[in-house]
Amino acid sequence: MRSVVMEAPGKVVVNEVEKPTLLEPTDAIIKLAASCICGSDLWPYRGADAKPVDHRAMGHEYIGEVVEVGSEVTTVAPGDFVVGSFCISCGECETCTAGYPSRCLKAIAAGDTYIGMRSNGTQAEYARVPFADGTLVKTPATPTEEQIPHLMAASDVLGTGWYAADAAQAGPGKTIVVVGDGAVGLSAVIGAKQLGAEKIIIMSRNPERQALAKEFGATHIVEERGEEGIAKVLELTDGVGAHGVAEAVGSQQSFDQALGCVRHGGYIGFVGVPHDSAIGTDKLFDKQVHLEGGPAPVRKYLPTLIDLIYKGEIEPGKVFDLVLPIDEAAKGYEAMDQRTATKVLLTMP
Amino acid sequence: MRSVVMEAPGKVVVNEVEKPTLLEPTDAIIKLAASCICGSDLWPYRGADAKPVDHRAMGHEYIGEVVEVGSEVTTVAPGDFVVGSFCISCGECETCTAGYPSRCLKAIAAGDTYIGMRSNGTQAEYARVPFADGTLVKTPATPTEEQIPHLMAASDVLGTGWYAADAAQAGPGKTIVVVGDGAVGLSAVIGAKQLGAEKIIIMSRNPERQALAKEFGATHIVEERGEEGIAKVLELTDGVGAHGVAEAVGSQQSFDQALGCVRHGGYIGFVGVPHDSAIGTDKLFDKQVHLEGGPAPVRKYLPTLIDLIYKGEIEPGKVFDLVLPIDEAAKGYEAMDQRTATKVLLTMP
Repeated sequence: MRSVVMEAPGKVVVNEVEKPTLLEPTDAIIKLAASCICGSDLWPYRGADAKPVDHRAMGHEYIGEVVEVGSEVTTVAPGDFVVGSFCISCGECETCTAGYPSRCLKAIAAGDTYIGMRSNGTQAEYARVPFADGTLVKTPATPTEEQIPHLMAASDVLGTGWYAADAAQAGPGKTIVVVGDGAVGLSAVIGAKQLGAEKIIIMSRNPERQALAKEFGATHIVEERGEEGIAKVLELTDGVGAHGVAEAVGSQQSFDQALGCVRHGGYIGFVGVPHDSAIGTDKLFDKQVHLEGGPAPVRKYLPTLIDLIYKGEIEPGKVFDLVLPIDEAAKGYEAMDQRTATKVLLTMP
Repeated sequence: MRSVVMEAPGKVVVNEVEKPTLLEPTDAIIKLAASCICGSDLWPYRGADAKPVDHRAMGHEYIGEVVEVGSEVTTVAPGDFVVGSFCISCGECETCTAGYPSRCLKAIAAGDTYIGMRSNGTQAEYARVPFADGTLVKTPATPTEEQIPHLMAASDVLGTGWYAADAAQAGPGKTIVVVGDGAVGLSAVIGAKQLGAEKIIIMSRNPERQALAKEFGATHIVEERGEEGIAKVLELTDGVGAHGVAEAVGSQQSFDQALGCVRHGGYIGFVGVPHDSAIGTDKLFDKQVHLEGGPAPVRKYLPTLIDLIYKGEIEPGKVFDLVLPIDEAAKGYEAMDQRTATKVLLTMP
């Protein structure tokens, strides 16, 4: 089968490899209906990843049909169409049941929660999913062609943006700022809107992304950055700042922006994978801010997200603005790296 | 009247100054029944404060009798005995009503929320309290001699420790770690206990403080620090870590300790005034921790704290292990700096 491999930073190839097989009785093998490239895949692509990139099988977002399950799997069966979280979770341990499935204790003990670090990667025709019962969610029906991108988004970016909005305490009457206009930031707008936020301000300079953000529910656009951007947000919030900020980048600049935009006693949900960023505790103390972030507990949100997609209430797949066959994955990485594409969907042969 | 003044780092004197007078119709003047020295007063004493120390009137903790009120004050009157928060709050603005009175927007707009930065300081015989209605709470009766230290503690350290425990989500069935065995850390033990925590672990090497922590409700003591201390906490929590950590120091070491002891998806409440400490967002992301801290919303807790004190259910005044007349304030600073005293109560002539 085909598998996307990053041989070294900047060098993506598609190899022919063996299909994955069941290794544990809790595993499932799925035949992917589609895959995609994540903003976080750009960190190793750009040589900015802490772990060595050497011949890494890529991909952690996936939807598809179950083709084989281990003897202990009970909730999904061959023939079922499933959406999985980018993090593996048993569904039974203390952190899973506390609502943090992406920090599953069993998955951590077994090596890693990130599926991309534990299998052949999901930018591939088939994938092995550990802890299938705790990680996968069956859809109510085999999706239509139109539903494929929406479900694909649910596997990571939609759930991740949703988590940022949730951790930012988006809700009725609230003003939420979204820092970052990538696929996750745009998904945070969907989350904030669905959770009932009254005013949704996205910081964006890109006309196409601004338009999509508005379609998703953004009520205001702030093009300015840094101190000027903060001043604009204060202007839009009676000088008080936003109730919550969804941070969807992970850089020092975006954290500073989030802290500047949030009100005293407010909430910051952060989901951008942090790179070389730190927060002075004096700043947190002064603003008395609530900070929560990490790998999104997508599995927790999946039933809700799938339901909204099948009801046609959200169309998160609109974040995909480039569709390529898996054989052309390298072009997809290049397009995202050059920012000529927001997010790339990879189709299977 | 007498007023404690820090002329320069390490140099504390007691000056004779004019009594404060009403400046605003929302002010009250109180005659202090006692005052005390705070752990945070040691930062300027040690020359580690960002703001210049030059002739600073000291003190921000206070209890006493109202002697005069402005024309707009309605909830307290001359003759009332009151406990006040170390932060000024109007009680009506958006952050006050949202539960963050120490970040009162009106107080910030007027210059500062910290009463010590806005008045003559409360290590003095009299003090002016701005926004008296939003800042002061009347006690049910004039306190006995025994109740004085308990109420004194409520003005800051008890409420601050309580907030750390509250932000750490102390509650039934929870395991809470307290980092710091000063007056605030010991008060966090009281808070954790009252909020219903099942296991309360305090990190302490000092036998007297350990004994008081146990009296307050600590179930376990960990003497080790750094990685060894973290290992001990993991041992006491089935390898998972604590549900919540109350951080009551503010140093880099104590933040690292807190992050090491908390479980994935857990809570850190931090109340130690941060000095030269920062948190790598990658660490927060990895642990998916909730972080909340700042100047404690003591005013919010005061009615509960006063009630518990009058019912005799808590005895927070036991954190005072040295009582000195205000004229000997310099000795008190020295004792706290040298750690021969945990917390010093200053009596009035």
